[in-house]
Amino acid sequence: MTTVLITGFDPFGGEKVNPAFESVKLLPSAIVGARIVKLEVPTAYARSAAVLEEAIERERPDAVICVGQAGGRSALTVERVAINLAEASIPDNDGDQPVDRPLREDGDAAYFASVPVKAMIRGIRDHGLPAFVSYTAGTFVCNAIMYNLLYLIDHRFPGVKGGFIHVPYEPGQVVGKPNGTPSMPLATIAKGLEAAVEAAVKDISDGGAGSG
Amino acid sequence: MTTVLITGFDPFGGEKVNPAFESVKLLPSAIVGARIVKLEVPTAYARSAAVLEEAIERERPDAVICVGQAGGRSALTVERVAINLAEASIPDNDGDQPVDRPLREDGDAAYFASVPVKAMIRGIRDHGLPAFVSYTAGTFVCNAIMYNLLYLIDHRFPGVKGGFIHVPYEPGQVVGKPNGTPSMPLATIAKGLEAAVEAAVKDISDGGAGSG
Amino acid sequence: MTTVLITGFDPFGGEKVNPAFESVKLLPSAIVGARIVKLEVPTAYARSAAVLEEAIERERPDAVICVGQAGGRSALTVERVAINLAEASIPDNDGDQPVDRPLREDGDAAYFASVPVKAMIRGIRDHGLPAFVSYTAGTFVCNAIMYNLLYLIDHRFPGVKGGFIHVPYEPGQVVGKPNGTPSMPLATIAKGLEAAVEAAVKDISDGGAGSG
Amino acid sequence: MTTVLITGFDPFGGEKVNPAFESVKLLPSAIVGARIVKLEVPTAYARSAAVLEEAIERERPDAVICVGQAGGRSALTVERVAINLAEASIPDNDGDQPVDRPLREDGDAAYFASVPVKAMIRGIRDHGLPAFVSYTAGTFVCNAIMYNLLYLIDHRFPGVKGGFIHVPYEPGQVVGKPNGTPSMPLATIAKGLEAAVEAAVKDISDGGAGSG
Repeated sequence: MTTVLITGFDPFGGEKVNPAFESVKLLPSAIVGARIVKLEVPTAYARSAAVLEEAIERERPDAVICVGQAGGRSALTVERVAINLAEASIPDNDGDQPVDRPLREDGDAAYFASVPVKAMIRGIRDHGLPAFVSYTAGTFVCNAIMYNLLYLIDHRFPGVKGGFIHVPYEPGQVVGKPNGTPSMPLATIAKGLEAAVEAAVKDISDGGAGSG
Repeated sequence: MTTVLITGFDPFGGEKVNPAFESVKLLPSAIVGARIVKLEVPTAYARSAAVLEEAIERERPDAVICVGQAGGRSALTVERVAINLAEASIPDNDGDQPVDRPLREDGDAAYFASVPVKAMIRGIRDHGLPAFVSYTAGTFVCNAIMYNLLYLIDHRFPGVKGGFIHVPYEPGQVVGKPNGTPSMPLATIAKGLEAAVEAAVKDISDGGAGSG
Repeated sequence: MTTVLITGFDPFGGEKVNPAFESVKLLPSAIVGARIVKLEVPTAYARSAAVLEEAIERERPDAVICVGQAGGRSALTVERVAINLAEASIPDNDGDQPVDRPLREDGDAAYFASVPVKAMIRGIRDHGLPAFVSYTAGTFVCNAIMYNLLYLIDHRFPGVKGGFIHVPYEPGQVVGKPNGTPSMPLATIAKGLEAAVEAAVKDISDGGAGSG
Repeated sequence: MTTVLITGFDPFGGEKVNPAFESVKLLPSAIVGARIVKLEVPTAYARSAAVLEEAIERERPDAVICVGQAGGRSALTVERVAINLAEASIPDNDGDQPVDRPLREDGDAAYFASVPVKAMIRGIRDHGLPAFVSYTAGTFVCNAIMYNLLYLIDHRFPGVKGGFIHVPYEPGQVVGKPNGTPSMPLATIAKGLEAAVEAAVKDISDGGAGSG
């Protein structure tokens, strides 16, 4: 049976909610036959990697998709690449605020997502929701967990598919923000995530040829 | 019994749906005790005014709130003012494309909304949705129906409250549009409209002091 | 001899410069034969109107064009209409922060610009710079001076042409602002203003048919 | 004597000019004592890499800074990383439109800029112009030349510093584009580029410690 581990971050930067884990919580426990394991991860460079690694050991998933908030984006964006760099304009939830620090001394400069990015985008659009590829996950904890995931796959968990999806603010977060800040309700985000996971699961069933 | 007439436009400009009337359709038939009358209006300068005038004569509402699509806006925006100008970059649904034409030869340069704009914005925000005041409804049919509504109130229907709310694209409309184009699901828009109507109804019950 | 009075505001809202008067200062003293009178006006509701009225009495201009900063806009925008409303989210430079206050108790709800808005936009574009019409000058002192100008023309100075141009931040202002905030150098703004004034002067020579 | 090679692309995508090479042309022939060699490169995946490699062989520069147009950005952005991926939504100037193609089969997934990114940003800001770091140069020819530059440095030209700067549209390009599209005059862009090159040259004089 196919297992997909889906992580979502807890709130950070003064926000009361994080649409990432809030929308992950709304996912069904099975998607096109695959078992869905949901995991809240802390918005902290070091701990998020540790919590993720433990969960992969425990659950032995076929694919891992991490979800994070990208305030200011209007669509679901599927990340293509994570880079070996930690640089933060605010402290993470453990007070860590790195400047120009590699995530892994022995890691590659970058890793590309191994989930089928384009198929996931098509899947979300087929459900009537906006989705785009993104070529930067930033340098905060979102990029860090994606980089650590792909590093761990490369070093310890060969064959596992890994990827990352950024989601917009939910509407309540933008009530006090500048006019023009986009948002998306949690149920809508969850619908998009489900469509993306469905595409990822089908890719595994089809032999998993398909990144890009 | 208080009656509120709520209009929404039909699709225009090559779009297959118009979130305006689609969200109006989702409103309940009564809001805080007021009867809600829903009316689809054509996106056409002349006909929209005629259809609106007939409906006001027939329904004798206490308040009229017109709803239109503002593609590119991320929040519900409550319009404060309508101006005596028709100017279109595309033809309306009857093929009319005015340049620099007054809407009413005997009308004022502008009319201010008489619904309680700020209370409506507060009402939407209290329901966790973004809302802002807007000082321009453009010069297409949205401004035209708002102007005609307030002109008719001034000339024929004294005491009726009039206003206009602009709503974002719904998600399906932005799937093929540039990355960054915001949207809002119809059910979310409807929730915001209901909160705005509630504030308008309460203002009428309170004596209707409150524009601004 | 044709005389054009051009006003620009002083800094406000914590900014050290205001690109409005800084760019006005760079204009030549004559444009297509018309005498150019430059006037710095305070960013204050009441004083800006008083200073403007005195200057019109003194200079007896054929046209008055007021210039103001529109932070966040990327192009020169020629305003089409000013409304009878003062509402401020920050105090003006005299500490006045009106809420929902008419600018003139005996004024119309709005006045339309009487300078040739479209010809001015074409003129700016012909010089290779972006320009657009705008249908809202907001509700702060920019709208107020435009409204007061057109009110004064209507009540005291018939035949004078009046208008308003909004200009972007200059680059130094956006160094500390969020990524994405547009700007335009003062010399570039001045080049655009000169093109706009040229179109306005030619319109006067041609008999001044042309608003819109 | 220090030599800096600065490249700029030719026009593409239907534009008549490319602000990249047009602004590079305005640079002086020496900056803080360093010799400046200017090179126009074709907006074509394969040929740009070949032309660049020849120029490095011929000029033996201490640093190479490539400059490209980033339509829609409002500031100069100094790129931090280039990725091993070619993917184009339009054909390049030689008709090549790759989908999901690595730039170099034997290259790393990504290379980080070796010019002092932050010092260059500070240098631009100190001259009163907006500048930001960027973590994506996209997947078109801009990313390709940056990737190829850093690959060549890694494989053939050790010790050379390499980087990439994205610049906004120049004003003439945005006259017909949607309202809100930012631009920057060529002379202003050139002033920013000069400040960035100055910081890069000083870093070389100081021993070149400083990426990041």
